[in-house]
Amino acid sequence: MQKVMKFNLSVQQQAPGDSNNNRVWKWHIQDPASQRLTWNKPPKSVLVIKKVRDASLLQPFKELCRFLTEVKGMIVYVERKVLEDPAIVGDESFVAVKKTFCTFREDFDDISDQVDFIICLGGDGTLLYASSLFQESVPPVMAFHLGSLGFLAPFNFDTYQSQVTQIIEGNAALVLRSRLKVKVVKECRERKGGVDETGLILTNGEAETTRRTMQYQVLNEVVVDRGPSSYLSNVDLFLDGHLITTVQGDGVIVSTPTGSTAYAVAAGASMIHPNVPAIMITPICPHSLSFRPIVVPAGVELKIMLSRDARNTAWVSFDGRKRQEVCHGDSITITTSCFPVPSICFRDPVNDWFESLAQCLHWNVRKKQNYLGSEEEEY
Amino acid sequence: MQKVMKFNLSVQQQAPGDSNNNRVWKWHIQDPASQRLTWNKPPKSVLVIKKVRDASLLQPFKELCRFLTEVKGMIVYVERKVLEDPAIVGDESFVAVKKTFCTFREDFDDISDQVDFIICLGGDGTLLYASSLFQESVPPVMAFHLGSLGFLAPFNFDTYQSQVTQIIEGNAALVLRSRLKVKVVKECRERKGGVDETGLILTNGEAETTRRTMQYQVLNEVVVDRGPSSYLSNVDLFLDGHLITTVQGDGVIVSTPTGSTAYAVAAGASMIHPNVPAIMITPICPHSLSFRPIVVPAGVELKIMLSRDARNTAWVSFDGRKRQEVCHGDSITITTSCFPVPSICFRDPVNDWFESLAQCLHWNVRKKQNYLGSEEEEY
Amino acid sequence: MQKVMKFNLSVQQQAPGDSNNNRVWKWHIQDPASQRLTWNKPPKSVLVIKKVRDASLLQPFKELCRFLTEVKGMIVYVERKVLEDPAIVGDESFVAVKKTFCTFREDFDDISDQVDFIICLGGDGTLLYASSLFQESVPPVMAFHLGSLGFLAPFNFDTYQSQVTQIIEGNAALVLRSRLKVKVVKECRERKGGVDETGLILTNGEAETTRRTMQYQVLNEVVVDRGPSSYLSNVDLFLDGHLITTVQGDGVIVSTPTGSTAYAVAAGASMIHPNVPAIMITPICPHSLSFRPIVVPAGVELKIMLSRDARNTAWVSFDGRKRQEVCHGDSITITTSCFPVPSICFRDPVNDWFESLAQCLHWNVRKKQNYLGSEEEEY
Amino acid sequence: MQKVMKFNLSVQQQAPGDSNNNRVWKWHIQDPASQRLTWNKPPKSVLVIKKVRDASLLQPFKELCRFLTEVKGMIVYVERKVLEDPAIVGDESFVAVKKTFCTFREDFDDISDQVDFIICLGGDGTLLYASSLFQESVPPVMAFHLGSLGFLAPFNFDTYQSQVTQIIEGNAALVLRSRLKVKVVKECRERKGGVDETGLILTNGEAETTRRTMQYQVLNEVVVDRGPSSYLSNVDLFLDGHLITTVQGDGVIVSTPTGSTAYAVAAGASMIHPNVPAIMITPICPHSLSFRPIVVPAGVELKIMLSRDARNTAWVSFDGRKRQEVCHGDSITITTSCFPVPSICFRDPVNDWFESLAQCLHWNVRKKQNYLGSEEEEY
Repeated sequence: MQKVMKFNLSVQQQAPGDSNNNRVWKWHIQDPASQRLTWNKPPKSVLVIKKVRDASLLQPFKELCRFLTEVKGMIVYVERKVLEDPAIVGDESFVAVKKTFCTFREDFDDISDQVDFIICLGGDGTLLYASSLFQESVPPVMAFHLGSLGFLAPFNFDTYQSQVTQIIEGNAALVLRSRLKVKVVKECRERKGGVDETGLILTNGEAETTRRTMQYQVLNEVVVDRGPSSYLSNVDLFLDGHLITTVQGDGVIVSTPTGSTAYAVAAGASMIHPNVPAIMITPICPHSLSFRPIVVPAGVELKIMLSRDARNTAWVSFDGRKRQEVCHGDSITITTSCFPVPSICFRDPVNDWFESLAQCLHWNVRKKQNYLGSEEEEY
Repeated sequence: MQKVMKFNLSVQQQAPGDSNNNRVWKWHIQDPASQRLTWNKPPKSVLVIKKVRDASLLQPFKELCRFLTEVKGMIVYVERKVLEDPAIVGDESFVAVKKTFCTFREDFDDISDQVDFIICLGGDGTLLYASSLFQESVPPVMAFHLGSLGFLAPFNFDTYQSQVTQIIEGNAALVLRSRLKVKVVKECRERKGGVDETGLILTNGEAETTRRTMQYQVLNEVVVDRGPSSYLSNVDLFLDGHLITTVQGDGVIVSTPTGSTAYAVAAGASMIHPNVPAIMITPICPHSLSFRPIVVPAGVELKIMLSRDARNTAWVSFDGRKRQEVCHGDSITITTSCFPVPSICFRDPVNDWFESLAQCLHWNVRKKQNYLGSEEEEY
Repeated sequence: MQKVMKFNLSVQQQAPGDSNNNRVWKWHIQDPASQRLTWNKPPKSVLVIKKVRDASLLQPFKELCRFLTEVKGMIVYVERKVLEDPAIVGDESFVAVKKTFCTFREDFDDISDQVDFIICLGGDGTLLYASSLFQESVPPVMAFHLGSLGFLAPFNFDTYQSQVTQIIEGNAALVLRSRLKVKVVKECRERKGGVDETGLILTNGEAETTRRTMQYQVLNEVVVDRGPSSYLSNVDLFLDGHLITTVQGDGVIVSTPTGSTAYAVAAGASMIHPNVPAIMITPICPHSLSFRPIVVPAGVELKIMLSRDARNTAWVSFDGRKRQEVCHGDSITITTSCFPVPSICFRDPVNDWFESLAQCLHWNVRKKQNYLGSEEEEY
Repeated sequence: MQKVMKFNLSVQQQAPGDSNNNRVWKWHIQDPASQRLTWNKPPKSVLVIKKVRDASLLQPFKELCRFLTEVKGMIVYVERKVLEDPAIVGDESFVAVKKTFCTFREDFDDISDQVDFIICLGGDGTLLYASSLFQESVPPVMAFHLGSLGFLAPFNFDTYQSQVTQIIEGNAALVLRSRLKVKVVKECRERKGGVDETGLILTNGEAETTRRTMQYQVLNEVVVDRGPSSYLSNVDLFLDGHLITTVQGDGVIVSTPTGSTAYAVAAGASMIHPNVPAIMITPICPHSLSFRPIVVPAGVELKIMLSRDARNTAWVSFDGRKRQEVCHGDSITITTSCFPVPSICFRDPVNDWFESLAQCLHWNVRKKQNYLGSEEEEY
């Protein structure tokens, strides 16, 4: 069996090749609808992610695990803390199934090369969590919305058996959701004798600076904001090494197209289909009237640092998690990740997206009506 | 000499190839900064486009033509009506140069395969006009802003000699600006006996319908609006054959990334860098509060038609030109064109764009200030 | 019976009066909820306005007229063209009632001092039309939405009898909707020998300029736009005689608070409750990113003129009607009118407004959801 | 000498009075430009407010105090901590002047009935601070921008002597800036045995609830936001006792017209002239696409509470100060205050405002340009 998986959203210039003149400039534009999932070999292992602390998900979770184990003969991976829920611990009838599970603990066990695909139960948060577990390649994800609708969870649980079967057989449309690779470099200052009140980096040798680097993969957005401070944040934004602007306001959102319909849209951004290879930059309550959001190509490198004259620190978070302070000298570098999230579609990338716009954001839901008043003869 | 021309903005999925498992999902992201112009053979012919009816451009125009002809030995193409300007006709000193020109008339003579590159004098309008002259492949365009600044005209005329020389030698950054291919199909009804007042398509055989098809290449945008009517326009928007929404309002703008900073930005859109392969859809004064602009992949097919219950016709224009009525049954089909406009950069695609945002739109120009008021100790 | 009618939205400074020092600065703020309609003497005559060309309104119209005439003994005023509808002309059973009507023709007969109150059938357009019939004082208006919802037509026809009875008895909340008085002064040039192609005012004595003045009362808005031109409109805006800004874009909307939820909201304005004494100025697709709408006090005088360097004329309309060209030298002067429209509330000014925001504009209708993703322990 | 102080922005309905019919509905609209400051008796005492920790203000501060004391013979009030600045303590030449000052401490000494007028040095923050010192009547304020421009500080220090003299002589235009009176009622629960994890009010008698009430006067805005939480805030908004909507997002801003150009404008609000008697409600990054800001009459009562199903608390601040948590059961009640801030104009309320829009917000600053491209004959 051959793997048929082609990312075909790009707009490419055809080599003028055969022609020897200067006059042929032409593109080949590919069709976003043709991405499909197929398997090199049948999937054997599946990670099941359940929203914690939501009692309504217990029954579906158990049903699904039984189905995957007993009917489909798959190896089910579950996070240990999910199984520590008293309602699962105390369920005698679930013991046998539970014994067959592989369990793991976040930040301790690495399962990134053991899972063939992922099933999420419980809304967008579960998919963001799944993404955070895989810092490199991510297996295809099938996400069920249970209760809470979301952009990232298109499947309805009612007919889960036939739908899961179809995925296992390799028949599904896919959207490759780009992620951002975010590198945070923190300047850690060891102060010797005396306090640096201004927060600026001491360069006179009295302080030793060491660097700490962290890296994150984000599916929705990186947010830099003023945190609990009443002051405006004041951060510089660099693109490919050039300072392009200074953000003065509540903060700035750097998002993927997937994230454009999350926090960015609340801050006023246009909405971008996940198949567009781009990065969106959206200010949060900017002090400047003219600071409209911008969309830049996926291939650029962005960097965010506190402005030299910022009076306060800022705070950064990654898909709403791992919130931390940003001090003078720290830098946040953002590029499009090589490791997208292959997100399984309910219908196809286009229909799923417009369905979500309508269901989650009521996009252009309206009553028909003539607001301009009326002509003389039509009142 | 070899032509080095590579469009490298796309985000592509690397073939999992060598691996036989299901677990490698990775992309290769290309760098937008590396597009450069080189010539297969030295350029010989150049089309010079001058904004008409602007006396201040006459002197630069004549100077440039002399330079191209006498110093560079190139064949200069000029539109006939430009030479009919009395100030050119009456200039004795220009006669000799003028004689060497190749002239043409719009809509009569086809020069599309005779020109190696294009020089525009006078703002964005000249580049839109140049684009309209080439319905297929477009030669590289070098555009001088003279007086009026613009997104599409990055060059300053002061040092035109050295700059033109550099282009001819093939040393320049390039941005391939995508265009939209727009196909308008008009239902032309031959009415027999009686008038169809409602504008609806007669189906009783009393009218014969013939179809007329027109095609346009647009660099900025297609606009469908209510024209002189006081009523809202009411048009249906289809994407890959599916009705995605109905636009009720002053109209709708379908624009390229290049066009996102033109009419679309005035209607509230986010601004998209021209290297992003996308199409932007922006409503004009929509009746619905929730009708936010959207960005879709370059590879989709859009179609616009009057809604069934539209009481009035709409109007369509292409880069602000060729304005015409849209009646019930007519359709406007829009895809990304295979024929982009290779637009020569002053510095590079990224710097030129941010420079234009600042110069033309005052993007995020601001005074530093603390709008949140102040903490107790800082008032 | 006493008329109890008090406009009490204003915020007034209390006279420091009794105090002889400089230190008492205090306001008295009035309550918007206490405006109520009462009659000096029982109302005798009623104008019934029906949306034309809407067959579904015929039955309600006839029923209502019968009720008013036969049950309530009132004199019914109807516009002549309403009665010329074949469906009314041909209805034998309606002849007797029809004979008792007073009829009038728009622009020919003045009924402004003969009508005690007005009933509208058919949406916002009918109330705008009613407003246009009364250039000075307007009787109270009761508007039924039939089919089409609207901000100006809060009543449901189902229980019209009890509701009309209640109004006649003088028991109703009222909102006084401010109108704008618009004075258009047109420079009419008699040209002698030759045509002034540029549209500029000839000053060489070859043309004689006469002035024509028109006046309008508008309930929603005055719109100045580019009309059928592809060029930006370019108009100067004066406030109390000072040039405050130049509008470059599709146009500008000067609206009442009532009009803020009509065209202005589509152009991006905030929504203003009709009890706020203010005028809203909203640009339509402005070329400038920073041209946010503004709200000025009701007491100012605005003036709009074509900018000196406008290349094209503009067009003006009044509540979507009486569209006309604006040429160089023409002026449009706008003040708050002394003659508001007393609009009868279904419940009260506050509840009616928020009900309309929800019903007509789906204001803040949403699904509850957590867009920020999730904390570690909550995914 | 008589005090001539008339607040005349209101739009009032004229009593139909003399007429006995139902047909006269007319308003009297007042002119915003006629508010002027005059003194009942010559002002004797002046409070000088200086931005702390800004060395550049020391010299102007000393100069001004000397001028007021020695030339004008006035009693100068200064906050004690201002005089504790080492640069003032150590200045021998300032000792004599300093001795004549009346000093006070914030939150300890009440000077609200001892000061005739106020002079602020150093931007909008000083005026917000001045406002916070006077919970009831506020003396007229003259504010100098020194360095930092602002909406609230129109005076330039260069010619301070002549300008202060003019104010003392009672010749000045005035804008009465409305304030909001904010009452915070906190439910303080004494817990007996056991912890209420959910944050809900215990009603079973195990906890005793006591109430704490605080009151604030704000000049710009009350902000309720999610504070350091990553979750959306979820607050209910009541108007005159009715629930009008639920705010889900980063938060909500309730602002005066003065505050409309501060945080509210950053969050997307239209800008309201301070003479409009209104309250603005602006969501901060709302989850709903259709949550446009609204403007309600000054006379309403607003109340904000955490929604029943809010998972997290919210935070409230007053002109950016006194930040505190809002828990389930707490309420924030907002009305227009009876005590506006009489703010002395540099020219007049209209010119000062438009000057600030241009200077501070670059409102509609733009380059003239034709974005629509061009007609055939005009390219």
